[in-house]
Amino acid sequence: MNKRKVIIDTDPGIDDAVAIAIALFDETLDVSLITTVAGNVSIEKTTNNLLKLLSFYKKPIPVAIGAGRPLLREPRDASGVHGASGMDGYDFPEPQQDLVLDKSAVEAMYETLMANDKTVLLPIGPLTNIAMLIREYPQVIDRIDEIVLMGGSMGRGNFGVYSEFNIAVDPEAAKIVFESGIKLTMVGLDVGLKALVYPEDSEIIKDMNQIGHMFYSLFKQYRGGSFGTGLKMYDACAVAYLLKPELFETVTTHVAIETVGEMTAGATLVDLRGYLGKEANATVTSDVDADAFKTWFMDAIRKCNIEQ
Amino acid sequence: MNKRKVIIDTDPGIDDAVAIAIALFDETLDVSLITTVAGNVSIEKTTNNLLKLLSFYKKPIPVAIGAGRPLLREPRDASGVHGASGMDGYDFPEPQQDLVLDKSAVEAMYETLMANDKTVLLPIGPLTNIAMLIREYPQVIDRIDEIVLMGGSMGRGNFGVYSEFNIAVDPEAAKIVFESGIKLTMVGLDVGLKALVYPEDSEIIKDMNQIGHMFYSLFKQYRGGSFGTGLKMYDACAVAYLLKPELFETVTTHVAIETVGEMTAGATLVDLRGYLGKEANATVTSDVDADAFKTWFMDAIRKCNIEQ
Amino acid sequence: MNKRKVIIDTDPGIDDAVAIAIALFDETLDVSLITTVAGNVSIEKTTNNLLKLLSFYKKPIPVAIGAGRPLLREPRDASGVHGASGMDGYDFPEPQQDLVLDKSAVEAMYETLMANDKTVLLPIGPLTNIAMLIREYPQVIDRIDEIVLMGGSMGRGNFGVYSEFNIAVDPEAAKIVFESGIKLTMVGLDVGLKALVYPEDSEIIKDMNQIGHMFYSLFKQYRGGSFGTGLKMYDACAVAYLLKPELFETVTTHVAIETVGEMTAGATLVDLRGYLGKEANATVTSDVDADAFKTWFMDAIRKCNIEQ
Amino acid sequence: MNKRKVIIDTDPGIDDAVAIAIALFDETLDVSLITTVAGNVSIEKTTNNLLKLLSFYKKPIPVAIGAGRPLLREPRDASGVHGASGMDGYDFPEPQQDLVLDKSAVEAMYETLMANDKTVLLPIGPLTNIAMLIREYPQVIDRIDEIVLMGGSMGRGNFGVYSEFNIAVDPEAAKIVFESGIKLTMVGLDVGLKALVYPEDSEIIKDMNQIGHMFYSLFKQYRGGSFGTGLKMYDACAVAYLLKPELFETVTTHVAIETVGEMTAGATLVDLRGYLGKEANATVTSDVDADAFKTWFMDAIRKCNIEQ
Repeated sequence: MNKRKVIIDTDPGIDDAVAIAIALFDETLDVSLITTVAGNVSIEKTTNNLLKLLSFYKKPIPVAIGAGRPLLREPRDASGVHGASGMDGYDFPEPQQDLVLDKSAVEAMYETLMANDKTVLLPIGPLTNIAMLIREYPQVIDRIDEIVLMGGSMGRGNFGVYSEFNIAVDPEAAKIVFESGIKLTMVGLDVGLKALVYPEDSEIIKDMNQIGHMFYSLFKQYRGGSFGTGLKMYDACAVAYLLKPELFETVTTHVAIETVGEMTAGATLVDLRGYLGKEANATVTSDVDADAFKTWFMDAIRKCNIEQ
Repeated sequence: MNKRKVIIDTDPGIDDAVAIAIALFDETLDVSLITTVAGNVSIEKTTNNLLKLLSFYKKPIPVAIGAGRPLLREPRDASGVHGASGMDGYDFPEPQQDLVLDKSAVEAMYETLMANDKTVLLPIGPLTNIAMLIREYPQVIDRIDEIVLMGGSMGRGNFGVYSEFNIAVDPEAAKIVFESGIKLTMVGLDVGLKALVYPEDSEIIKDMNQIGHMFYSLFKQYRGGSFGTGLKMYDACAVAYLLKPELFETVTTHVAIETVGEMTAGATLVDLRGYLGKEANATVTSDVDADAFKTWFMDAIRKCNIEQ
Repeated sequence: MNKRKVIIDTDPGIDDAVAIAIALFDETLDVSLITTVAGNVSIEKTTNNLLKLLSFYKKPIPVAIGAGRPLLREPRDASGVHGASGMDGYDFPEPQQDLVLDKSAVEAMYETLMANDKTVLLPIGPLTNIAMLIREYPQVIDRIDEIVLMGGSMGRGNFGVYSEFNIAVDPEAAKIVFESGIKLTMVGLDVGLKALVYPEDSEIIKDMNQIGHMFYSLFKQYRGGSFGTGLKMYDACAVAYLLKPELFETVTTHVAIETVGEMTAGATLVDLRGYLGKEANATVTSDVDADAFKTWFMDAIRKCNIEQ
Repeated sequence: MNKRKVIIDTDPGIDDAVAIAIALFDETLDVSLITTVAGNVSIEKTTNNLLKLLSFYKKPIPVAIGAGRPLLREPRDASGVHGASGMDGYDFPEPQQDLVLDKSAVEAMYETLMANDKTVLLPIGPLTNIAMLIREYPQVIDRIDEIVLMGGSMGRGNFGVYSEFNIAVDPEAAKIVFESGIKLTMVGLDVGLKALVYPEDSEIIKDMNQIGHMFYSLFKQYRGGSFGTGLKMYDACAVAYLLKPELFETVTTHVAIETVGEMTAGATLVDLRGYLGKEANATVTSDVDADAFKTWFMDAIRKCNIEQ
């Protein structure tokens, strides 16, 4: 069987850790590169977190370090959600540093894309690296199979009233990506808010395997330890869409990124009614079967068995 | 019993016609002035429509003509929804012109407010007149009991992806009104989209009385004659909130008006999570009991009996 | 001889005081109304300053109080230039309060305009009142002979890098006025910066008459008492243009008002090269014969003799 | 003698052609790399023009192809000024293509900067490449000796009322560069408009040498063949500043780039008065000794002798 080539661009972050594990242990995906970006926490921390995860997972995937800040705007983070380190709650062994390539994320993505058949980009953080890749190397546009990204919202936001964190941190980068002409699926809050882990789920996950045990420890620190109305597995939704799109309802339409608004920069205008009069440029996951997602999710983590 | 003094500011419009009738025939309200504004159609047409309604209702309320265009932006209309005249579908007799005061809407509101005890403003069109009133006569702020307006949305819009018609037509005016410090309730799409008249309702309304018969004729022309998923009685919701607030769920919070956004100007940012860090300035109707609303609505129209 | 009817809209302010005197004592002008606006200092202070001046000049012109703040933006002032009162430096007698009309500036301008033949508007402060007049009473557009305003710049600014104070305080009002279609002359920094009073001029002015003596006292407090490279008689330039246009070079072109810019709101884009592709809407004074202006100016003050 | 290392980033363009020649034939500069960018004409044309020039000059400098469009905005060009090819008027021999490196402009600049002592960047087109370099490789900030760029204006513009072409084409890139903390000199219209070639100069240049003859042919096509009030040697000013700064008056202050304005995006706000309250980030050439510049300029072209 031909595995699908995937490049993950990420800012771990707790839900990133889960999404990366599922992607790395899935038999149908071939993750050839993981790039890091500032987002949930600083680039130093997201890179270090990724290296910890790869060491822990025993998956020596090449890593390239990406943008330490958004294109235009001042950096913002989400350490209030993910803890000071971005991945508080588990005592990881020291990571292998030798996975880090001696080239930038943009350069590494470019080379990987040009050396391979069509590859999927899976960005689950701010879109800074992907935007720079597109502007520096427009020739990659034809080498990208599709972009499946976690970000945006059809309705209200989680960082501003109408803006989601990954898009709002770098709206200009998002605009470049959404207007690139690349086939793109936006997996946003509309499904992420329904992809929930409850305390009882976490207890089951705890006993699945080593990785489940580690997730359990992270979950207990998420948002300062409160499960609230359920922990949102945003990033795992993007992987779920890649692996099992039938879990989702989608709509294909124009999505515009507001970059000018005083209080709305980063809003993803999913133009269902055609107010903007522009052609479709994105597929948007408008809904998810939450029960079927949960079944898939638990099963996916169960498969995350570290090779001894 | 002391009736509540009310000034209606309106751009009829079919749902305006209904809202005005309910307000005028309600025993607990004393509508002392109705002002017109450009919105659904031009100021000439909205004024003419209002005069037709008042003649038809046999309610000789003083009328003052207001703004023919938004403060800053180019005029937009909604004649696609309400028909070319703004109130197509019924053959009204020629209206009495002598109800029109020889003063501007702003001046008439000012004089009415200063001459009376506290008065409610009920704007059910764009907020241009109210904004000009506040800026020209800030002393009225203390004379306004409250503003109950139809406009805005907590979620998506009906004129832009995130903007509702009345606010989007004149966002700068809305900003002035929402930031005025006056007690304000925003009755928007969140409830308007649930305040529906179906064909079977319209058949009942047809036989209620003369006014019901007239409404039936207008409803048949609304949106080109399609009831679709139900005719939205947006403006009637504002009257309903004034008369029967217990039909609604509300939240009191900060509402900001986006005026800068390229594609989001006119968005009403109902800041439930405190992203903007500002004090509450509005009560927002977040939900309505649709069945109870329907009961109230049908009953309210039934009471609209023209005096012979 | 028919005198030209003039309405002055002002925020005194020291250079306003000079401009008003010249206009009031000129034999060819008939100032029928003076309206006040917040600008250099608060509306209470600008109104009080105007009343002081009218009492001192023994010119009982009707006064109407206008806008206490800009249409949309937060108030800004220039008390650093004009002193805390806006007119520090002279001990005026208590002013007559009975000149103040019991109507708003907008209402008073409207009535004056409708009752008279064509009248010149001479706004020498922010354009808030004029904008509201145009929006509330568009019928006055045909009754205004022309607007000669002090404000704007073809080049750099005096309040922001590219914005002049009167326009930058209320750019939205300026946009309304410049786009109104009314014949308009913008007398801005391009000439104002060349209309200078030096210490030696002030010594001559001191001995001209009572008013000259008063001006001398004000000049000594302007900008904290420093003549610097000369005191700018901005507002007097607008009066000069009205009375003696041959002192000025002008260009007729499109002038657009930037309202969106983060750091450029209030810039007056005098589009000499046609970059914006729009029709001419304003005459702009691009230069002044500084020597001839000085001669005119000194002579004009010399004529300001209070009747005993 | 140690030559100064220089990287030129350019969009030739007629005045680029002159500036490049002067830099390449100057004995004190060592141009190690030239990168191209879309600007005056498309990236294909600017690259081809550069290769033509290098072949003609017999200077086999490595070339790397850069951005084909601005970061965010739609491409604009200046073919109305420079002709359809960007360098109309001379029949160049076919250029050597083998100078073109197999890496992007960003990558080539990065490698050159890291391999050398401190190097000067001389961008004489839009700043897209430099901005991407800074964001992808922030470590170069310490390797750049200084940036001397052609662009911007202290006063009015040549592309918009207040914006100069190079900055206005990609204001977001300019903002990144000006805010990078790198020592930066902005050589803009304030001096470029005084660096003029007149017909009589061009006749002298024609007979200087082969390159002078070529320039003469280009000059005759510039702006459709009209010398107008003199041909502006904008880009040569940046080289002049690098080689002979004593020709210029400068001011060191904060320069902000407007990116939001509706009609002012790309304005370079040279904040001489401190309106913006920010620290100095740029030296700006406020004036040039035009006669001394002319002497230097003629002499510099005279030195451009192609080695046989």
